Amino acid sequence: MHAMKTTSSQPLIPVLAVVGVGLIGGSFISALRHAGQVGHVIGVGRNAQTLARAQALGLIDEAASPEDAAARADLILLATPVGALPAVFAAIAPHLRPGTVVTDAGSTKQDVIAAAYKGLGARIDQFVPAHPIAGSDRQGPEAADAALYRGRTVILAPLAESRPADVELVRSVWRHCGAAVVQLTAETHDAVFASVSHLPHLLAFAYMNQVAAAPDAATRLALAGSGFRDFTRIAGSSPEMWRDIFISNRPALLAELEQVQAMLDTYRDALLTDDVARLEGLLGNASDTRRTWLPVAPTDFLDL
Amino acid sequence: MHAMKTTSSQPLIPVLAVVGVGLIGGSFISALRHAGQVGHVIGVGRNAQTLARAQALGLIDEAASPEDAAARADLILLATPVGALPAVFAAIAPHLRPGTVVTDAGSTKQDVIAAAYKGLGARIDQFVPAHPIAGSDRQGPEAADAALYRGRTVILAPLAESRPADVELVRSVWRHCGAAVVQLTAETHDAVFASVSHLPHLLAFAYMNQVAAAPDAATRLALAGSGFRDFTRIAGSSPEMWRDIFISNRPALLAELEQVQAMLDTYRDALLTDDVARLEGLLGNASDTRRTWLPVAPTDFLDL
Repeated sequence: MHAMKTTSSQPLIPVLAVVGVGLIGGSFISALRHAGQVGHVIGVGRNAQTLARAQALGLIDEAASPEDAAARADLILLATPVGALPAVFAAIAPHLRPGTVVTDAGSTKQDVIAAAYKGLGARIDQFVPAHPIAGSDRQGPEAADAALYRGRTVILAPLAESRPADVELVRSVWRHCGAAVVQLTAETHDAVFASVSHLPHLLAFAYMNQVAAAPDAATRLALAGSGFRDFTRIAGSSPEMWRDIFISNRPALLAELEQVQAMLDTYRDALLTDDVARLEGLLGNASDTRRTWLPVAPTDFLDL
Repeated sequence: MHAMKTTSSQPLIPVLAVVGVGLIGGSFISALRHAGQVGHVIGVGRNAQTLARAQALGLIDEAASPEDAAARADLILLATPVGALPAVFAAIAPHLRPGTVVTDAGSTKQDVIAAAYKGLGARIDQFVPAHPIAGSDRQGPEAADAALYRGRTVILAPLAESRPADVELVRSVWRHCGAAVVQLTAETHDAVFASVSHLPHLLAFAYMNQVAAAPDAATRLALAGSGFRDFTRIAGSSPEMWRDIFISNRPALLAELEQVQAMLDTYRDALLTDDVARLEGLLGNASDTRRTWLPVAPTDFLDL
């Protein structure tokens, strides 16, 4: 590990608790440690071995129960697969101090927010929903990377009940991780990420299943090149995480899937009818869109 | 340009002609020049400006007509989009010297071979069908890269009529480009590359069309991240080249497309029926297949 910045003043987060110390949670801790913005770090998780490795790596200072972490933390980041969040909200709710801020890193927002209302009850005003747009096909605390969020975007989707000072705190910690912070409604968030993240994952997974099912799959895989490599990279992602995301964002994902299936039918028809002009029009439109795409350098904005 | 190797002996190809001096043809020339295995290089193409740029870049020594090139070259590489090949075969056939070897770099083989029988007629024994598995979303002679083929695979699909010495020559030039050479039947080639190359391109193009057609496409594209970037990289490829490949390999591509559409229906059904176990099984199979995939270091083999 590199030396940490020393600050003469109090760090932004004297006591941080992270539930789920994998790539996302671990990278958050690592970035805040490097920024000198965190004091004591409590790790929470179902797997004692993972927590022991996170402690050996210097990510967390101790492992604790959700209840104990809720009672002591200034900020709690929930970084588990989204399917585990209802149980986590229910576990921490009775133990939260009034000043504690709860935030998450879930890839869907409407479903997580519904679970938060149910699990946190009257403590819902302590929750600031968020989603860092960063990832990797690597997993576990060993994948933690202080630079993971540098130059990336973090979406905040605050509730009507969220306390303004809490929203500011969450915005500030993500900025200390090097990210730009953008604010969206949960509904817009879920529609956009169904399209630009969840659907590509579904397509890559389904394509990989189709190749794997072929009688000559070994020959195919042996001859696959760099186009295949990049197109399928996201198909190597965590099945548990993506099962939860697909279920959690089902309505928006199904709407996108239906549209891309219709587009595939259009390609199929153009091929079957030898409609070369139609095919060329489609390919030109797709290629132009991709060639002119540049990920926007994000600045803060309210709903796009 | 780096200094070229000097060889005291005659280069393997005293006079090389390349029809289509873009990424593929230009990189072939550049690699053979660096290997010191080529003497004089003739460029052939429809676009005089492209040929002038290729000459200014030092790739070709002169531009000539297909007829002139056919009469003077020891080896002719056809590196145009495959849709242009029927006309090229017809143009060069009457002018080929008996010793000249013709090869191609087309992404499909059965269709190209049919065009060769038709266009080359009695000269068919001078043709060695081939396909280098390398590419890039960059185009034109400026994209030429002497290292493009290093460590990559080149497929040869020789005809019953192909002369063994010609097959050996084509094998040898590709090895001088740094590639491993593999031999397949044209039928196997087309089935395998419909699966591991053409279908992923079709899926990436169709997905890009679907995003571009959304009313909020600008918002979506502004928030797209690294998964999107890699998944869609191949959608930026040349529409003209891919139109030709899709049409040229239509039967095999349609068979793969139908299967992946069925797999998408399976995902849709699992989502609609909330079949979490089925979904998890599919995602686990896809993720395992991708995680254990390693592009095989190719060694020469006859039909896999």
